[in-house]
Amino acid sequence: MEIHKGLEGVVVSETKISSIVENQLLFAGFNIDDLVAENVQFEEVIYLLWYLKIPTKQQLIKFKQELSAQMPISDTIITCLKIQTRQNLHPMSVLRSTISLLGVFDPNAEATDERSAYQQSISLQAKMPTIIAAYARLRKGLDPIPPRNDLSIAANFLYMLTGVEADQVQVAAMNQALVLHADHDLNASTFTARVCASTLSDVYSCITAAIGSLKGPLHGGANEKVFDMLKEIDSEHLNVADYLNQKLDRKEKVMGFGHRVYKTEDPRKKHLKKLAKELTAITQKEQWYFLSCQVERYLKETKGLIPNVDFYSATVYHCLDIDSDLFTLIFAMSRVSGWLGHIDEQKKEDCLIRPRSHYIGPKQLKYSNLNTTLHSGGMEA
Amino acid sequence: MEIHKGLEGVVVSETKISSIVENQLLFAGFNIDDLVAENVQFEEVIYLLWYLKIPTKQQLIKFKQELSAQMPISDTIITCLKIQTRQNLHPMSVLRSTISLLGVFDPNAEATDERSAYQQSISLQAKMPTIIAAYARLRKGLDPIPPRNDLSIAANFLYMLTGVEADQVQVAAMNQALVLHADHDLNASTFTARVCASTLSDVYSCITAAIGSLKGPLHGGANEKVFDMLKEIDSEHLNVADYLNQKLDRKEKVMGFGHRVYKTEDPRKKHLKKLAKELTAITQKEQWYFLSCQVERYLKETKGLIPNVDFYSATVYHCLDIDSDLFTLIFAMSRVSGWLGHIDEQKKEDCLIRPRSHYIGPKQLKYSNLNTTLHSGGMEA
Repeated sequence: MEIHKGLEGVVVSETKISSIVENQLLFAGFNIDDLVAENVQFEEVIYLLWYLKIPTKQQLIKFKQELSAQMPISDTIITCLKIQTRQNLHPMSVLRSTISLLGVFDPNAEATDERSAYQQSISLQAKMPTIIAAYARLRKGLDPIPPRNDLSIAANFLYMLTGVEADQVQVAAMNQALVLHADHDLNASTFTARVCASTLSDVYSCITAAIGSLKGPLHGGANEKVFDMLKEIDSEHLNVADYLNQKLDRKEKVMGFGHRVYKTEDPRKKHLKKLAKELTAITQKEQWYFLSCQVERYLKETKGLIPNVDFYSATVYHCLDIDSDLFTLIFAMSRVSGWLGHIDEQKKEDCLIRPRSHYIGPKQLKYSNLNTTLHSGGMEA
Repeated sequence: MEIHKGLEGVVVSETKISSIVENQLLFAGFNIDDLVAENVQFEEVIYLLWYLKIPTKQQLIKFKQELSAQMPISDTIITCLKIQTRQNLHPMSVLRSTISLLGVFDPNAEATDERSAYQQSISLQAKMPTIIAAYARLRKGLDPIPPRNDLSIAANFLYMLTGVEADQVQVAAMNQALVLHADHDLNASTFTARVCASTLSDVYSCITAAIGSLKGPLHGGANEKVFDMLKEIDSEHLNVADYLNQKLDRKEKVMGFGHRVYKTEDPRKKHLKKLAKELTAITQKEQWYFLSCQVERYLKETKGLIPNVDFYSATVYHCLDIDSDLFTLIFAMSRVSGWLGHIDEQKKEDCLIRPRSHYIGPKQLKYSNLNTTLHSGGMEA
């Protein structure tokens, strides 16, 4: 019997949403390198992942109006965010709970017709940046700043964090990071969303589940850990080679390196590395770029390890003045576009995802009764 | 290229927790038929799924004390439950959000050492029935009833619903239903939990994700739909054959029938059918049992369809005076035991579950720039 541990290389679904072929990542047939070169707006990419075609200018305007209209969050959601405060609370847990609560408060959450499904998708996509920005402020004791309907998702998010419009360079960087993270074949969180969708559960359940998977350090949680590592090396003036050798000797994973699918190059990395170089230069934070390059070079030369999407995105977000424990939430507000596309595709496939396991324990054991009383609890003794 | 749609028959993991071989379901080597015949307590089954062995009497007493100590829920959680009220809200959405919030309020939620992981498991297992019972009362405007530490999980749950101790027969039925639903190989919700755990995300993320999958009508959501169907036939005095024929003609699924793995018999059904017969007799609700038998017979004879675990459990829960929209939550408070065992097993395996998709859309398309302004939002026109 073959055991497909980790489902490595196992093809589960056909898709029209994205593809990885020979180190190239395509969204519905468009190479991300072209999308980046053409400064495509994240909103266009969302449209592309959902409709599987580039919008016309008129279609894009209508689509952005639909998103804008759904960006504000209710006072009830703000109240729920306020409740979710304690020391050292991971904000991904807050995002997970709050997205779940969006479903609780949506009177149409159980509706499955096409129109309702589309409205739910627009609402989830539109509200996620608002929720993240509101929480980023609330936990510092600041009032949330409502979204503006004249700003793009990237510009709006940076505006809602600070109350000040971000400049061209910052918006372009944020936008590009959102574009690059939008979809990626059957990564673990997208696959989680598809397994959940395959039971025909509601979209809030699927997105909540996906957030839970993205949170893991072997998935989206890595970008936060990358910056923790850089800070540790920097603040203690450590020698990069010594630090990495010790880490590898302890069999610890170096976050931001290696990928199940890419063995020679992650096509997203070069763009994020370029962004990191530009932003660190503008913000006089060159040390993070140089340090990152040192880490990259050392791991490449000694171990043949290659950086993935998480490695340079950490420095990009840091230059945008975003707290490192929010990095994975930025990932989520981009990837939710792909999740929603995949949920729709999976539901149309109408096929439960239900694999098997191989039992390796003892068999046909005989039970000897403990004479427990079915009524009795912990305090029976 | 082979596409493993729905991962049918694909073996993803080795496990020591449960197995299905030739229509027999075993928990860590013990046949469920024996466990039912010996009136094993649900608490013993939880222990079995986690420790992979039957506890001694002393071990069981200690285990039950650990569970009892964690059963109460905080005032904060009760406040959160009170917020989650609106018309026609599905209680599985409330359970999903509230379990996620348990993680938000657990100061130790991110700890991954063995002791912390065990404490988190005990807490989740112990609190789930308390949350469900509290919500069942709160939505009717009644105060929650705190758990008692001298009652078993089955007895406690029924007590917390009504404030009155349930009788021997009711507790035995509830206990047996919990035992029979506790684990089941890589069903969709358990697999969801394992995919999430494979990213090394926290246990609250994994259980929240699993609840989302269980909610789906092609999975745990089926037991509620079964009773909806029975009620529809009964209240409108429909002819069973006509009703089912019309349903099948419309290509609708008959909930509670068919299973990915079992083709000739679901080993749990006979026990639930027996329980349904006994309970309907005692409660003078024989009509549900007879109606169920008619449906079973007709679908067997005409379509060769066999009832699964959800079909007779619906009538069992109805005889225990449980609202039909809570049926899937009962499933969750049992299956969480299996989920927790599988999460632990998956984390020890330390292998990201990350399959591939096969792209079937157009390739290498050329993007023509829409000249969108990266700053502009929905109101640019």
